[in-house]
This record gives sequence, C-alpha cells and structure tokens, in this order.
Amino acid sequence: MTTAAHAAPPARSVTYPKGFRVASGAFGIKPSGKPDLMLLACAPGLGCVGAAVFTTSRCPGAPVTVGKRHARNGDLRAIVCNAGISNVMTGQQGLDDAATMCTTLARHLGCSPKQVLPASTGVIGPRLPMPKVTAGIDALAPQLGQKAAAGVDADHAAAHAILTTDLVPKPATASFRHAGTTYRLGGFAKGSGMIQPNLATMLAFLTTDAAVAPDALRYALRQATATTFNRISVDHDTSTSDAVAILANGAAGGDRLDATHPAYPDFIHALTRLCHDLAQQVVRDGEGATKLYHVRVENAWSIKDADKVGHAVTGSPLVKCAVHGNDPNWGRLVMAVGRSSAKVDPARLSIHIGRVCLCKHGEPRRLTAKQQAALDAAMQGRDVRIRLDLGFADRGTPPADWTGCDLSADYIRINAEYTT
Amino acid sequence: MTTAAHAAPPARSVTYPKGFRVASGAFGIKPSGKPDLMLLACAPGLGCVGAAVFTTSRCPGAPVTVGKRHARNGDLRAIVCNAGISNVMTGQQGLDDAATMCTTLARHLGCSPKQVLPASTGVIGPRLPMPKVTAGIDALAPQLGQKAAAGVDADHAAAHAILTTDLVPKPATASFRHAGTTYRLGGFAKGSGMIQPNLATMLAFLTTDAAVAPDALRYALRQATATTFNRISVDHDTSTSDAVAILANGAAGGDRLDATHPAYPDFIHALTRLCHDLAQQVVRDGEGATKLYHVRVENAWSIKDADKVGHAVTGSPLVKCAVHGNDPNWGRLVMAVGRSSAKVDPARLSIHIGRVCLCKHGEPRRLTAKQQAALDAAMQGRDVRIRLDLGFADRGTPPADWTGCDLSADYIRINAEYTT
Repeated sequence: MTTAAHAAPPARSVTYPKGFRVASGAFGIKPSGKPDLMLLACAPGLGCVGAAVFTTSRCPGAPVTVGKRHARNGDLRAIVCNAGISNVMTGQQGLDDAATMCTTLARHLGCSPKQVLPASTGVIGPRLPMPKVTAGIDALAPQLGQKAAAGVDADHAAAHAILTTDLVPKPATASFRHAGTTYRLGGFAKGSGMIQPNLATMLAFLTTDAAVAPDALRYALRQATATTFNRISVDHDTSTSDAVAILANGAAGGDRLDATHPAYPDFIHALTRLCHDLAQQVVRDGEGATKLYHVRVENAWSIKDADKVGHAVTGSPLVKCAVHGNDPNWGRLVMAVGRSSAKVDPARLSIHIGRVCLCKHGEPRRLTAKQQAALDAAMQGRDVRIRLDLGFADRGTPPADWTGCDLSADYIRINAEYTT
Repeated sequence: MTTAAHAAPPARSVTYPKGFRVASGAFGIKPSGKPDLMLLACAPGLGCVGAAVFTTSRCPGAPVTVGKRHARNGDLRAIVCNAGISNVMTGQQGLDDAATMCTTLARHLGCSPKQVLPASTGVIGPRLPMPKVTAGIDALAPQLGQKAAAGVDADHAAAHAILTTDLVPKPATASFRHAGTTYRLGGFAKGSGMIQPNLATMLAFLTTDAAVAPDALRYALRQATATTFNRISVDHDTSTSDAVAILANGAAGGDRLDATHPAYPDFIHALTRLCHDLAQQVVRDGEGATKLYHVRVENAWSIKDADKVGHAVTGSPLVKCAVHGNDPNWGRLVMAVGRSSAKVDPARLSIHIGRVCLCKHGEPRRLTAKQQAALDAAMQGRDVRIRLDLGFADRGTPPADWTGCDLSADYIRINAEYTT
C-alpha cells in the first residue's frame, strides 16, 4: 500500500450488512510484504446464496474459470482472494491451485468447496506460491469465528488486502427499508485500469443481509453492473480476471426477495447505488487520472447504441487528451461518435459540454462571449459533463451515463517507465 | 509545414506513372499561409478510371459523402483536396461546397463534375472559405496543362500541400513488368493518427499508368488496403474523413487488365507494395511515436479473427506503453488477445518477441540468461517484432501483419496541451 492508501479514513464495507465475517493479512505472496490475502464468509448458521459476473476476456484467469463453475447455481457462501499474482496463463496447474484455495477454506468453514468463490489479481504468468497461500488461509480462517472479523477495522484492512497498484481502498455501503425492516448492502472494489506494471483486474466483493432468491440475485447483479461497472473506462483495456460477486445471507430477516416481491425493485436500486459508488471510485483512481468526464448519451436508437457511443467516447485517447488539456474539442466527440458503430445520423446529433450547446442537429453553433466563458469553466472542473443527443427521441431509449478519466503523461510514466 | 517536412528529400509519387498532372499551392485556407490545395488529374486525351475506399465513420465528412457518389461507377479522372478545414459536420452547405469544388475543377478540365473526387482534411466544424478554395482551383487548374505539372518538384510540392500536422511528406512508387511493358504506380499519403489539435484524416492518392477495368481496379484497391492501411493503428481512433483513391489511365500501353488477365495478380501485388510503403510511413509519423511494433498473428481460426487480434494488440494503450518502455510485458499481450473477441484457446497460445519464445501453448517459459539478453535486445530496437500464434494450424489461415506505434508522453503533449 502507498502512503495515500494508508491515509484513507477507515470505512465500513462488507460487514456493514449483518452476518458477514472478513479477515485479511500479509503472507508473502506480494514481494513487498504488503497485505495480500482476504477471506470473506457468511457467519455460521445462516443460509447464504451468491451471484457473480466475470470478465468477457477470451483468455480468462484460472480463478475466473473455476469461479464461473462455482457460481453457476447460486450456492455460494465465501470468497477467497489473493493479490500479487493473478493466476492467469498457468494451465492446468493454475486451475488446480484455484480449486485448492477453495478446498482449503471450505475445510475450515465446513462447507462444500463449490460454495467458495476464488479470485486472484496481480502479475500474469507466474504460478501462485501455494504453500504461502494455503498457510495464509489456515492462519486467517479461524479469525472468521471471532468478533474482530466484523466491523470497521476488519473491513478497512480487507479492502486494502485486495489492492495492487490502487492508490486508495474503495469501500461503499447502501441500505433500503421495506415493511419495517432495514436491509443493508456493502462492498469494496479494486482496480485502476488494466494496471501497472502487469498487474490487472477490477474486482468487487459485495454483501447484503437481505434474503434473495438465487435467480433474482443473479438478475439484480447483472442489472446493477450493466449500468455501473460496465459503463466506466480507464484505458479501454479489459483485464483477464475481472469479477464482481455478491453474497446474500438473509440476516436482516424479512421476506425472501424474488423477482415478484414488491421490495425487489428497491433491492436492485440499492445494489445499483452501491455499484455506482464503487465504480466511480475505480475510475477516479484510474492510472494517472487527474479528472473525470461524465458522458450522458440521450435519445439513441437503442440502449445498445447508447452504450456503443458511451464506450467509444470514454475510451478514445483523443477525447481523454482533450479533457486532460481542458480543450472543448467537440470535433473529437464527433469522431468518437462516428467510429462507435452505433446507428448515427449526423444531422440529428447535438452536443453539450456543461450547459453550453456546441452543435445542434448536426450544425455547429457560434458561441457568445458569455457562452465561451461558461464552456471554459465547464472544462476546467475536476468533473466534466458531456451530453450527446443522438436525436432519435421517438424511440424512447433511456439515457446511458458513462464515466471516463483523462489521459495524462503519468499514465505513460506508470505504464512505460517500469521495466521487468 | 515544419522544418522537418521541408527537409525531406524531393521524391516522385503521383506523376511517376505516365500521363498524370499535379499542381498545388497556398490559398489562405490554412491560417498559417502554408500550402493547402492540391489538384491531381489525368492528362488530356487519355481515358481514365478510378476507385476509392472511405472511412467507416458514421459521421463522415461532406467530401466522403460526395466522393462515394462520384466513385460509385469508377468513372473518375481528377482529385481536388484541400488541407486546413475538413468540411465535417457542416450540413447541407458542406455537401454543396464539396460539390462546388468538383464543378470548379471539372469546368477547367472539360469533364463531368462526377469525374472529380473531392477531399478535405483539417479542423472539424467550420465551413470551407469557398471564395479562397475556388480562386485556388482557378489559379492552379491551368498549370495542369503545363510541363511543370509532372516531375519530382510538382510531386514533392503536392505531397506537402495535403499535410496538416504530419512531420514529413509520404511519397512512394512501385512498378511491375508484363509482356515487355513496364507499368508504374505512385502515390502519396497524409495522416499521423486522428491528429492534433482537431485535425484529422488519413488520405492517400494513388495513380497508375496501367489500363485497368473499373471493377478490377476497385477490387484491387480493396485487397491492397485491407492488408496495409487497414492493418495500422496509431491511436485506435478513426477519422471522419479517411479516403484512399486511385486513378488508372492506361498511358503505359499494353492490355487492359481485368480480373482474368494474367498480369492482374502482378498489379495487385505492386499496388499492395505501394500501399504498404505508404501505410508504414503513416504509422512511423504517428503522433509522438518513437518506435514501431510489428505484430504477426499466425494460425488464427479465420482471417477475421487474426485481424481482431492484430487490431486489439496494436490499439492497446498498455501494449503501446510497454513498447515505449522497452518492457517485454507479455501479460499485456495476453490481455489484448483476450479482449479482442477473436476465437482464442489460451492453451494453444504461443508468444514470441523477436526470436524469443515467452509462452508456448499457454504456458510461460523460463528464459535462460542468453534468451533474456536476446529479449532485451529485441525490445530496444526501433522496430519491435511480436509473433502471436493462436494455435489453430489445421485451419490454414494465412498470417496477418499489423503495425502499431508506441504511446509516448509526446502524444499527450501534442493532444492535450493545445487548447482552442
């Protein structure tokens, strides 16, 4: 951890919902000796289900392959994650190692290895130092039965233990009430791009004390990630190990939520807020990022087209450079919209930065001095707001909000000046 | 033009083939007063056909829209191109202006306006200063009848007049012999990415004195660009105005080449060499580029899959940074292969940098000290060679060669520090 990471104020996350335990420590997986192993589990005696979404990479890491298998039917109650080595491109041995992580923790918890989700983040290529990993699990697992395994200190330490080159830990909480019961959600994330030097991965581990049916939990997680984690871009690169996982243990009491329950929309909404908070923290900690830009894509032909445009604009190095230089260079926005492969009619395209309209229905607008001043002010902020109206209002497509970060010389420094 | 551009030695290009004329000059379209207008035409009395390929942007510039219409049936004999303003996002007025450029030149040449291909490169948004543009065409067109409109000086000046922020002009020539006749090809290109500050566009104008049937010319151009201009990446961004056009006038004599003629493969081969030469010049002049990397994708499931991998690897900012830092970071190659959406089996993937195998059939290889030294040497060069074998040898897919350039702090400087 850097000094900046240490400096972040302790905050609740995965044990904010009732009935979860977390433990973490340093076991020499990272050469630096920093914390590198985290265990998260539902407290004994509670039922638990889980869901997870994974990277779309065609070269996924071994934990992703094993994790997909374990998450398939929603029967999850624990997560084991190491940082330092990502267990990617490690062949059959890597798959065996990911399975061993699960077996080792499951033995302590008295559950099936299939109820444990494995995750790893770090360097691609090397094998995990399994004696260190299993010794770490053996050392930490007994703590999961102790009182210290819940609360702000345990959460704060665990949020650190999954970091690689992140500058700060990324915790978040959310809650909602229904029929007199308060339901809590919590989680932490890591990731700041495809990350330095060959460390990778965006990971987020979430918990809730609501009781949720496995199918409904899986659907809610897909919904929440589609509009949050899937709408951020640091550098357009996709890690081999990305995963977002949630455990739900019902410790809050109340009904079991399924897709027809009146509180289910509230749960999806709270989960989306939680994911939004974490996703914004990830992009704000983007490598070398000095400012964010928020792109709202309105009146697209379809939500898929809106996402194509948002993805292209937040991924474009030229737009990123313009944001970095406070340059209201809307020609680059046109370029990115044009290359997005979304359905676009240039004659319908309108572009706003802040409150200033730069282009209306495909034609540039001449700015007054006052508008020019407002535009300059909008570009100077730490958060730049861009609105792209594709002009297909009659289609009724909801807006899509994407978030990107600027591209600075620090990104190059971080990613080029290190040599293996 | 910069000093560097002036310093490039004069070289033949578009009038190297017989029967072509070129003229260029400065007409105040660029605020800098540098050359900004170029006319290229077949000499009077010769028949001529043409073909062109254009940007896939969904927000194409007005010259692209008009040019597509004019190029449709292959009946082209002249090209008019200005630099400084790209005539993009200019609505109906922009379309009218592009058409007027053609009409003005056609009047001088005594041909149909539809036989003229328009092109523009530069800032997105402003309208063309049409009085300056038409005055320029009127001033230059008479030169097309004079002897000075062919030869090294005319070619050299014209290669400059289409540049925006390129550091150097990009001329090339090729030739082949068949049945006692020598056929010549020539051309020049511009482009160094989606380019600073909001100047855009990769343009290439090619000529040949071979007689070629329009359909065969179009097919040959598509073939040649698919493996050359379409396999380079500076910054993964696509301009609104890209175009590659060729004129063929038959001045060399000999048969008219159609798809069944025995010399037709030779023509395609020479045209591909010409395009390869120009494409390499474009990427070498990439914004802020200090070195190139050449990615050969072997044994892909299909050529489409090979291109997806090549595109992802040459477009990845993390791979670009690794090349910039001389870092043999093959984890980033795995990441880029994985995110490419190509059909990939990690257990079949092998990776070479230079002659050193870093990963064989999905498993990392331990390097000897000698191999490590060879790897370091391979990374230090101005041209880094990467070989990705996807392992589907039984599919018989030919290799795809892609070329990218590194990402340096200069790219950020060029693209961020300028503010409008």
